[in-house]
Amino acid sequence: MANIKISIIGAGSAIFSLRLVGDLCRTEELSGVVVSLMDIDKERLDAVHILAERYAKALGSNLKFEKTMDLNTSIDGAAFVVNSALVGGHGYLEKTRKIGEDNGYYRGIDTQEFNMVSDYHTLTNTGQLDFFLKVADTIKKLSPDAWLLQAANPVFEGTTLVYRETGVKILGFCHGFHGVEEVIRELELDINSVDWQVAGFNHNIWLTRFLHKGKDAYPLLDKWILEKSKNWKPENPFNDQLSPSSIDMYKFYGMLPIGDSVRNGSWKYHFNDDVKKKWFGEPWGGADSKTGWAWYQNMLKETTEETEKLSKSMDADLLKRFPPDKMSGEQHISFINAIINNRKTRLILNIPNRDGIVPYIPDDVFIEVPLTVDADGVHPEKLEPEIPERIVSMYLLPRWLRMEWALAAFRNRDLEIFKEFLIRDPRTKSYEQVESVINQLMEELPEFRAHYKKN
Amino acid sequence: MANIKISIIGAGSAIFSLRLVGDLCRTEELSGVVVSLMDIDKERLDAVHILAERYAKALGSNLKFEKTMDLNTSIDGAAFVVNSALVGGHGYLEKTRKIGEDNGYYRGIDTQEFNMVSDYHTLTNTGQLDFFLKVADTIKKLSPDAWLLQAANPVFEGTTLVYRETGVKILGFCHGFHGVEEVIRELELDINSVDWQVAGFNHNIWLTRFLHKGKDAYPLLDKWILEKSKNWKPENPFNDQLSPSSIDMYKFYGMLPIGDSVRNGSWKYHFNDDVKKKWFGEPWGGADSKTGWAWYQNMLKETTEETEKLSKSMDADLLKRFPPDKMSGEQHISFINAIINNRKTRLILNIPNRDGIVPYIPDDVFIEVPLTVDADGVHPEKLEPEIPERIVSMYLLPRWLRMEWALAAFRNRDLEIFKEFLIRDPRTKSYEQVESVINQLMEELPEFRAHYKKN
Repeated sequence: MANIKISIIGAGSAIFSLRLVGDLCRTEELSGVVVSLMDIDKERLDAVHILAERYAKALGSNLKFEKTMDLNTSIDGAAFVVNSALVGGHGYLEKTRKIGEDNGYYRGIDTQEFNMVSDYHTLTNTGQLDFFLKVADTIKKLSPDAWLLQAANPVFEGTTLVYRETGVKILGFCHGFHGVEEVIRELELDINSVDWQVAGFNHNIWLTRFLHKGKDAYPLLDKWILEKSKNWKPENPFNDQLSPSSIDMYKFYGMLPIGDSVRNGSWKYHFNDDVKKKWFGEPWGGADSKTGWAWYQNMLKETTEETEKLSKSMDADLLKRFPPDKMSGEQHISFINAIINNRKTRLILNIPNRDGIVPYIPDDVFIEVPLTVDADGVHPEKLEPEIPERIVSMYLLPRWLRMEWALAAFRNRDLEIFKEFLIRDPRTKSYEQVESVINQLMEELPEFRAHYKKN
Repeated sequence: MANIKISIIGAGSAIFSLRLVGDLCRTEELSGVVVSLMDIDKERLDAVHILAERYAKALGSNLKFEKTMDLNTSIDGAAFVVNSALVGGHGYLEKTRKIGEDNGYYRGIDTQEFNMVSDYHTLTNTGQLDFFLKVADTIKKLSPDAWLLQAANPVFEGTTLVYRETGVKILGFCHGFHGVEEVIRELELDINSVDWQVAGFNHNIWLTRFLHKGKDAYPLLDKWILEKSKNWKPENPFNDQLSPSSIDMYKFYGMLPIGDSVRNGSWKYHFNDDVKKKWFGEPWGGADSKTGWAWYQNMLKETTEETEKLSKSMDADLLKRFPPDKMSGEQHISFINAIINNRKTRLILNIPNRDGIVPYIPDDVFIEVPLTVDADGVHPEKLEPEIPERIVSMYLLPRWLRMEWALAAFRNRDLEIFKEFLIRDPRTKSYEQVESVINQLMEELPEFRAHYKKN
């Protein structure tokens, strides 16, 4: 494996990088690969580099590490590029949110019907989408056969954009589907007896197949709802897989939303923080409320501090934080191993809708579905049963349109499309409000202005 | 032609019926056909019957008339059924609008993005859609080869529903496309030198081809906008083809909306009566404002009084009101003549999207396009150029989804779908508001309650 190079763009996210490094160490067949850690934040890059080397050594792995602040250097010769960079960082997202809220858009204008996740910026983070394209263009130039594993959000918009504009071999990665396991655990089922599929778009997936020992397992969920849902309480703001909102969406759509999809219901669950509390539980009202998001921001801060501490601590602490015996749950390394060593693996990935898996949706739009990966590439499973009509008509199609409008505004650098998108936002009360929020974005955010300025 | 019977359902609308009768009289080749006038309002039916007979006689026609209050009798043996009935009348529409406004829905809940036309009820007039199906079922039973010419609204929802549920030969009729002629007149072009196409859905059509002497005529419109649009003033609330809203939609979408489509822009043009005045002109703010709609209601009243007067007046008055020398502009009789006598005719009709004319739209959804009719049926024209992507993505697709949601609620008699539709309405501020408006509809409207009551 000595010739295989894996590039991690945005490697300064220590937790994410160490999860991948751990998975690599645990995958014997990938021993000897070279990991290129790339980030523009020198301090964080150095810290992660030290941690990664120590961690690999502690696990007895012979992974090799490079570090670089240069995109070209990292991508040149890579067989796999994992893009986990968040351009502008969380601070930029909070700036755009504040501008939205200044103008009457609760939770910011990127928060939209079926996209309430607070850092899934589809409209304002032009820098992020520009960078997606930059990474893809660099791959095209330097490593045209490389796979691009898109980990950073917005995965739905980003993968579709990159695929259409560059044609590189991009796939979208998200760990949200693990929500299925939470359901299985909560229903006290043996995971090996459960046969499941999820399908939809990223952050918009549904448990379309749910069989226990070959029999429909949804009645077991119904029983849980009847007997146990009243005792449900969230342990943290992100603990929403079996929240009242999830159950309510299940009742309406006939199937359970999985992972971040639960956060992405309509405004019914999100009108304001009080409504959120009702649907996502006290005290936070889910992750995308004022207090829930403060909890998350605090966690981000603690993580940064922890990383610093870990980089100066004992190996034992490192191994405690990242236990050596368990795969992380991220799918990137399993994917890489499946491709390189033909290790047939089942994953849930975002791929183009080439075989018309989701009806009515064009074949260049990215869908999230179960598939098998091997040395020949990805092979989507046949969905049985198909995605129900109501989910397609009332959930996926409207989400698809919003993706198209966001990309049309971005690609054409056309603020008129942007405005028309906002006119259709339920929070918009007047055209002046639309103009005001856009003016403020143009004034206060140089990155946004650079993208949309008139030629 | 003695064997041909044409059934007019809802014939009590005197103006509409007399327009068709006049067109029949003016179409020599259809002499001798039998017209069955059907209405449940005996008084109006009698009046129209008298007027129709007198009018035909005055024009020297040998049309034969029957009148009946029984649907079966009228449809039995008919080759063509024109359905122009408005179940519940205008009064019902105003009742539902008031309930909407009582609950914070300006102009009523049927007024929606891309469907602002105040009597195009897609949600609350369940009786109307039920009646569409009843007419179609009666045709299936008694005259299965008959053509169903759907004249009453909602044409888009209704034709699609009837086609899917019954499979009868239904086509949708609307005269809105005549807006093109108004544009041609205003630009002072010779109509015979203009080559045009319109396409979209009913009340959502666009001037997709506009050539003058073979050359792009849109620059002539641009010139008009530059030089003359500032002098534009509406002569009545419906006079909006070249209103600021129409021009603004043209600027954004790249093509001019035609006819009632101008009324169906987004909330940008409709937030409130003041906004409407800006976009549709003073003093009314278009047809779908408080004062504009009052104007229309007054006209309806005057029309009823006029009908009564005419039925007692001299033939000369009748001929003055319905001049004998000019076709009415309605397309029904041209269609019938084209089918019966193989008179190849170009019309703008609503037909299933069978040949994928509108991309992304299923083939059982009705589209409004130019076509040729002859004895073999309807032959849609090839659209050249195609409908622009922006119109499809940002206008037709969202309108399509709203049609699907309305029909899904109606067909499944499912108030949960109805609620979910309303949750996505920009006017909705809370779930309680949704429940409140639905409760009031259920309480105050027996027809609505009958349709949606739990089995």
